[in-house]
Amino acid sequence: MKAEIVTIGTEIILGSIVNSNAVYISKRLAEMGIETLYHTSVDDDFNRLKSVIEIAKDRVDIVITTGGLGPTDDDLSKEAIASALGLPMESDTKMEDELKYFFSYSQREMTLNNLKQAMKPLGSEFIPNPKGTAPGIYIKHDDKIIIMMPGPPREMIPMLDNYVVDYIKDDHIIAVKSINTIGIGESQLETDLKELNINMEGFTISTYASKGCVEIKIIGKSLDKDYLEENTNLILEKIKSKIGQYIYGYDNSSVEKVIIDTLVENNLKLAVCESCTGGNISSRITSIPGASSTFDRGIITYSNLAKVDEVGVKESTLKEFGAVSEQVAIEMALGLLSKSGSDITVSTTGNAGPTSMGDTPVGLIYTCVADKESHQVFKRIFSGDRDVIQERATNFALGNLYNFLNKKLT
Amino acid sequence: MKAEIVTIGTEIILGSIVNSNAVYISKRLAEMGIETLYHTSVDDDFNRLKSVIEIAKDRVDIVITTGGLGPTDDDLSKEAIASALGLPMESDTKMEDELKYFFSYSQREMTLNNLKQAMKPLGSEFIPNPKGTAPGIYIKHDDKIIIMMPGPPREMIPMLDNYVVDYIKDDHIIAVKSINTIGIGESQLETDLKELNINMEGFTISTYASKGCVEIKIIGKSLDKDYLEENTNLILEKIKSKIGQYIYGYDNSSVEKVIIDTLVENNLKLAVCESCTGGNISSRITSIPGASSTFDRGIITYSNLAKVDEVGVKESTLKEFGAVSEQVAIEMALGLLSKSGSDITVSTTGNAGPTSMGDTPVGLIYTCVADKESHQVFKRIFSGDRDVIQERATNFALGNLYNFLNKKLT
Repeated sequence: MKAEIVTIGTEIILGSIVNSNAVYISKRLAEMGIETLYHTSVDDDFNRLKSVIEIAKDRVDIVITTGGLGPTDDDLSKEAIASALGLPMESDTKMEDELKYFFSYSQREMTLNNLKQAMKPLGSEFIPNPKGTAPGIYIKHDDKIIIMMPGPPREMIPMLDNYVVDYIKDDHIIAVKSINTIGIGESQLETDLKELNINMEGFTISTYASKGCVEIKIIGKSLDKDYLEENTNLILEKIKSKIGQYIYGYDNSSVEKVIIDTLVENNLKLAVCESCTGGNISSRITSIPGASSTFDRGIITYSNLAKVDEVGVKESTLKEFGAVSEQVAIEMALGLLSKSGSDITVSTTGNAGPTSMGDTPVGLIYTCVADKESHQVFKRIFSGDRDVIQERATNFALGNLYNFLNKKLT
Repeated sequence: MKAEIVTIGTEIILGSIVNSNAVYISKRLAEMGIETLYHTSVDDDFNRLKSVIEIAKDRVDIVITTGGLGPTDDDLSKEAIASALGLPMESDTKMEDELKYFFSYSQREMTLNNLKQAMKPLGSEFIPNPKGTAPGIYIKHDDKIIIMMPGPPREMIPMLDNYVVDYIKDDHIIAVKSINTIGIGESQLETDLKELNINMEGFTISTYASKGCVEIKIIGKSLDKDYLEENTNLILEKIKSKIGQYIYGYDNSSVEKVIIDTLVENNLKLAVCESCTGGNISSRITSIPGASSTFDRGIITYSNLAKVDEVGVKESTLKEFGAVSEQVAIEMALGLLSKSGSDITVSTTGNAGPTSMGDTPVGLIYTCVADKESHQVFKRIFSGDRDVIQERATNFALGNLYNFLNKKLT
C-alpha cells in the first residue's frame, strides 16, 4: 500500500512551524509496512486543497491529511475534500447531540460555527479525538482510503496511534538497520556496495553522508519476520566483509561516542592537542555525557609560541619543517602525552584556510595519534571552506583515533 | 509571484529527517514578497519526481527543489526535471575541467560518478556551491523559473542567500536590516519591541533566536528606495534607543567575529581556558578566518588535575570551593593570563549535565574575563540538554567578553 501525507495550514506553508506531523506519520506508516511516496503541504484555500486531494487520490492508495478540521471559517478541509471526491456533506445527528451535550456540560455557549463539527462527507465515519473537540474522518471511496486528522500533534498523535492504525494496517513488517562509517567517501562507498551486487527481494540499501561520516541504511520489507532477520544479517555480513575497516558503529552512533565508550571501558585517559581544528575535536568529545571520566584535557596551541610553551614543540622543528608538518604533529602528540600523563593523545596541525600560509596549501592537515608504545601520523588535503575543512579534519582525526584504539585493543 | 518548494529525498519521505529546507526557503521567499503555495516532498524516484515537477510547473511561477544533485546513482533530480520539461541533458566542459582539477588538487581518485556533476539540462545555468561539490541549476522555461539546490542545509542556505535570490526577485525593493543581540531572551525582546509600537507601512519586524543570540529582522518592501531607507533608519534608531545595550552587531555578524575584529584592531592577544564548554569557545573563535593573528591558545582543563597543572588553580581552592565556583573561574582566567602573556583571557567552569555533581546543579556556570588591570566574574544557571547548556554557556562567556572589551576600549 502507498500513502500520501497532506498537511494543511498556512503556518506550515509560511515556514512558521516545522512539519513534524509528516515526520511522525511517515515513521509510523513505515513501521506498518506502508510506503509513503509523497508529502504535500498546502494552505487553507478551498480550491488549492481540493486540487491537491484530486492529485493525491489518483497516485496513492491512502491519503492522510492533518489540519483544517476546527470550527472556524478557515477550517475547510472536510468541505474541500468532499468536493474533490464528489461527495455532498451531511450532518451527523449523533455528533450534533454530543456537541450540544459537551457545551452544556462545560457551561459554554455553542456558536453556529461549532455545529460545523457535526458535518461530514456523505458515507464517511467520524474518528474519535480523545484530546480535542474536532473528530477525525475516515472515508473509503473507490478503493481509496482518505483519513483526516486534526493539525495539533497532541491531538493527531493519539488519534493516529489509537484509531487510525486499525483502519490502514496490513500484514507487512519493516526492518531498518544502519551502519555508520568514517574515513570513506560516499561515492567510493557506493562503488564498493555496487560491487557486492546485493539484490535481495524486498530490500533496499542506501547511503547518507553527514558531517564527514557516511551512513548505510538497509531497509527490508516482508510478511515474514524470519526472512527479514536472516537477510538483514546476511547483507550486513557481506557489507562488513567489504568495507569493515570503515565501520565504527551501528544504528546512528557517533564516532566520538564510540571512542568515549571504548576509552571508559578500558580505563584509558585521553588528551587532545589541536591547532587547525581549533577546539572542534575537544568540543565533539565533551559533547558526550560522561566524557569527564576519560577526557583529561585539550590544548589548542594556535600560535607557534603556544606550541613551544604548552607541549614542548622544538623551535628548531618549527623553523626547519614549519608549523604544518608531520614533525610538528608528532611533537605535539608526544609532548602532550608526556606532559599530561594521559594514555593516548591526538594532535592536529594544518591550514584551514582561507589563504595559504607560505608553502602550505589550504586544506593540508596532519594528525598524529600516540600512546606510550607507538605513534602514527596521517596526512590529508581537504577542500572546501574553512568550516568544512575544520569539520573534515576533525573527523579525519577522530577516525584515525578510533582506528588506533581499535588496533591497540584487539 | 507564486512558488512551490519540492524537497527530494527518501530520508524526508521516511520521516528520518525534518524538512527544515522547506521552512527556511518559505521564510526567505516571504521576506522577498514571494508567496509559497505548496510544499511537496518526494523520494528519489525518476517517474514520481518527474510527475511532481509537471504538476508544480503548471500551478506556480517558481519551482524550487532541494536534493538529489550529488554524484551517486540515486541522485537523479537533474535528469527527472529535464525530462519533465522536455529538455535533453548536456555536459558542461568548464565544469568537467573544474571537477578534474578539484580531484587532482585533493589527490583523490575521480570516479565516473563524479562526472555526473558536470551534466545539466540543455540551456540551464549552474549556480555556484561555495560549500560543496554539487552545483545548483537555474532554468528559465516557458516563463517559469526552476531552481535546483543541493539538499544539505549547509550547502543550500548559502546558495539561496548569495545566488538564488538574484534569480527570483521582482520589481519591489526589499530592504532587510538585521540587528544582532546577545544577553537578552527572545520573549523579553519581543515585549520590548511591542512597547515601541512601531507600525510602518510595508515593514515587518520579527525576531529569530539561534545559538543563544537573538536576531531582530526589519524587513521593508516598497517600490520606493528612499522610503525604505529613511524608515529602516527610523526604526533602527527607535530599537537602539530601547535595547541598545544588547546590540553587538548588524546584518548577521557573529559575536565571535566582532570580538576578533576588535582584538585585531587593537592589537590584543586572546587566550581561553574552558572547562564545561569543552572547546566550544575556542572552536567558535577559530571558526573566524584570521583568528590566528589574535588567538594565542585555548586550554581545556577538563579534569581537576589539568586545572592545577595547566593554569595553576590551587588545590586548596578546588577543595574549599569545588571546581564549579567563582574562585576557580577567577584562578583559571588569571592563571592563563600570567602564563600565556596574552592581553585578555576568558574562562568557564560549570556543570553541563546531564547529572548534578554533588551540590552543583545541572546548568550552573561561572565565567571570568580578565586583563592586566581587572577581572570580572559572572554566574548564570541555564536549563536544557547538555548541548544546549554548552551552547548557552559559550554565548554567555562570549557576550561577557564582548562587553568587557567594549568597556575597556571606550
